[in-house]
Amino acid sequence: MTTEIIIAIDAMGGDHGPLTTIPGVDLAAQRHPDVRFILFGDSAAIGAPLSKAKYLQGKVEVRHAEITVAMDEKPSQALRRGRYKSGMWLAIDSVRSGEAKAIVSAGNTGALMAMSRFVLRTLPGIERPAIAAIWPNMIGESIVLDVGATVGADARQLVEFAIMGEAMSSCLFGKEHPTVGLLNIGSEEVKGNDSVKEAGRMLREMKLPLRYEGFVEGDDIAKGKVDVVVTEGFTGNVALKTAEGTAKMINTFMRQAITSTWISKLGALLSSGAFSTLRDRFDPRKHNGGVFLGLNGVVVKSHGGTDGIGFATAIEVAIDMVRNGLTQRIASDVAAVHGLLPMGEHQGDVAV
Amino acid sequence: MTTEIIIAIDAMGGDHGPLTTIPGVDLAAQRHPDVRFILFGDSAAIGAPLSKAKYLQGKVEVRHAEITVAMDEKPSQALRRGRYKSGMWLAIDSVRSGEAKAIVSAGNTGALMAMSRFVLRTLPGIERPAIAAIWPNMIGESIVLDVGATVGADARQLVEFAIMGEAMSSCLFGKEHPTVGLLNIGSEEVKGNDSVKEAGRMLREMKLPLRYEGFVEGDDIAKGKVDVVVTEGFTGNVALKTAEGTAKMINTFMRQAITSTWISKLGALLSSGAFSTLRDRFDPRKHNGGVFLGLNGVVVKSHGGTDGIGFATAIEVAIDMVRNGLTQRIASDVAAVHGLLPMGEHQGDVAV
Repeated sequence: MTTEIIIAIDAMGGDHGPLTTIPGVDLAAQRHPDVRFILFGDSAAIGAPLSKAKYLQGKVEVRHAEITVAMDEKPSQALRRGRYKSGMWLAIDSVRSGEAKAIVSAGNTGALMAMSRFVLRTLPGIERPAIAAIWPNMIGESIVLDVGATVGADARQLVEFAIMGEAMSSCLFGKEHPTVGLLNIGSEEVKGNDSVKEAGRMLREMKLPLRYEGFVEGDDIAKGKVDVVVTEGFTGNVALKTAEGTAKMINTFMRQAITSTWISKLGALLSSGAFSTLRDRFDPRKHNGGVFLGLNGVVVKSHGGTDGIGFATAIEVAIDMVRNGLTQRIASDVAAVHGLLPMGEHQGDVAV
Repeated sequence: MTTEIIIAIDAMGGDHGPLTTIPGVDLAAQRHPDVRFILFGDSAAIGAPLSKAKYLQGKVEVRHAEITVAMDEKPSQALRRGRYKSGMWLAIDSVRSGEAKAIVSAGNTGALMAMSRFVLRTLPGIERPAIAAIWPNMIGESIVLDVGATVGADARQLVEFAIMGEAMSSCLFGKEHPTVGLLNIGSEEVKGNDSVKEAGRMLREMKLPLRYEGFVEGDDIAKGKVDVVVTEGFTGNVALKTAEGTAKMINTFMRQAITSTWISKLGALLSSGAFSTLRDRFDPRKHNGGVFLGLNGVVVKSHGGTDGIGFATAIEVAIDMVRNGLTQRIASDVAAVHGLLPMGEHQGDVAV
């Protein structure tokens, strides 16, 4: 069964717009010759980089959009100004209509989430969406969610995140029974805030069909102690950015230290193969793509500052999610445990 | 004016008890010949390592304690079992009585905080204590608080943390006007949860005598964007452990990469000077010591798994805090802004 996959691209998103998104789409097309793309944005700006693309012949369609959502625009303003007319909105709407299977954007995260919630709505049984990050660890990669969509998620929402993260881990890494942990400040049941303790109790007692391994701490993320790390959006966002900042700092110091004397420079030259392996492993472009979970459709957010290689990675994450039926998997997983979850008050809620 | 400084040591704390704490005290005594120590704990266990100490002759007194608080004991249990009788309790109590100026422990963090709050009480005007971490960044070191004492600190408590962290930065690094930032998930005023937004408003509008620089994000910690980063205990603890985990992971991969081929090994040998500089800069033993802020006395918590060098660092942090009058400074700073802070409900509260 090979249905054709069409991916919608917000071509104007990101710090460099089409100058990085189009080369990214081209690279993804080279690797996935069976995928087609629709590029939404200012057709004049898309034209030049598109003319240089080698692998997009006959596989791409450009849809002109009058409005581009600015990177620093407030989500509410973007929603007012960009509704029906911005490339971001139109790209998302093509997923709602079923024309495209997923949308990838390097644009304004808040605006992308607000529009995605408005257009696609949350899946039945899901109160709030989450953004899942793909996080390199000692033994591979784990999924950490939420990294910024739902600040102050309550216990029930954390349980939903656990179900969604587990589904994503299965789809993306092909793990049959991914392990799930709740991020906390200690492993004992008495530790943490009320929502984490209550979510822990629910996950222990509800007998959901997932491998819940209990509480994990900040340093367990890098250890790869569990496949899926669940937390609310504020803490998850701070943890993600703190880890990125730490990695960058060490990288900078490493360069400084190595180039400080001619003998260490010579040493670095000899070790350059090893360093490039290391750089490769932590290349942020290879872990690019925050996946919006819990919506009626696949939405992948690329880092705004990435290049074509990084944008291609985000597209490939979207393709993987579509191929492995992430949305359907989450919908059926949530439906299966529906009776077990306490009734929420905000189902299908729309954010503006 | 050189008053003699006496430091109380919980000699039994940490993963290896007196086998690391006593060499640590010895090293601190070598560097600070004018400081004296009281060692609290099982005198039999303290005897052997103490007999090997070179710099403690005539500068140390051992006080036997019947009970040792276990590393995994619940705080409430430690408080019941160890009250009046444990080395940890007695060491803290020697600060309350004024005999010692500070207490240093590598023991059970929760028990140390519970006993410290019970024995020393919070300073007038301070609702909740905080644990401050000394965090290496691109341009030096910053202070991050709270890293685990007060989960879910409210806006007023975050403002208190800002005042306390600013005082600590002045005392420890001699900064005249340290900058202060509130940890958030974006720099705009609308971002974050209610307590962070409200604390931000208070810090902007209250005209406290401190340099408030607004919201900072997780990656700004490593950048050294501000001298003092303020957050509540849950997020701060997760951020600290996530950064530690990330640094360890990169370090491990660096070793693996470098020793993967003989040519990279040779290169590493030539670069070894540079690497040792780098290791030195990130040596966790050089950034050891979480300072409990907001209590009537200086309490410093060392990592439980550290060695003598690390424990000596924690002692030196305590000595610095005493020399620079941290407790008095916080007390007067809080008193000075007392009229500006809204009345709290939990002043002088005791945790068990």
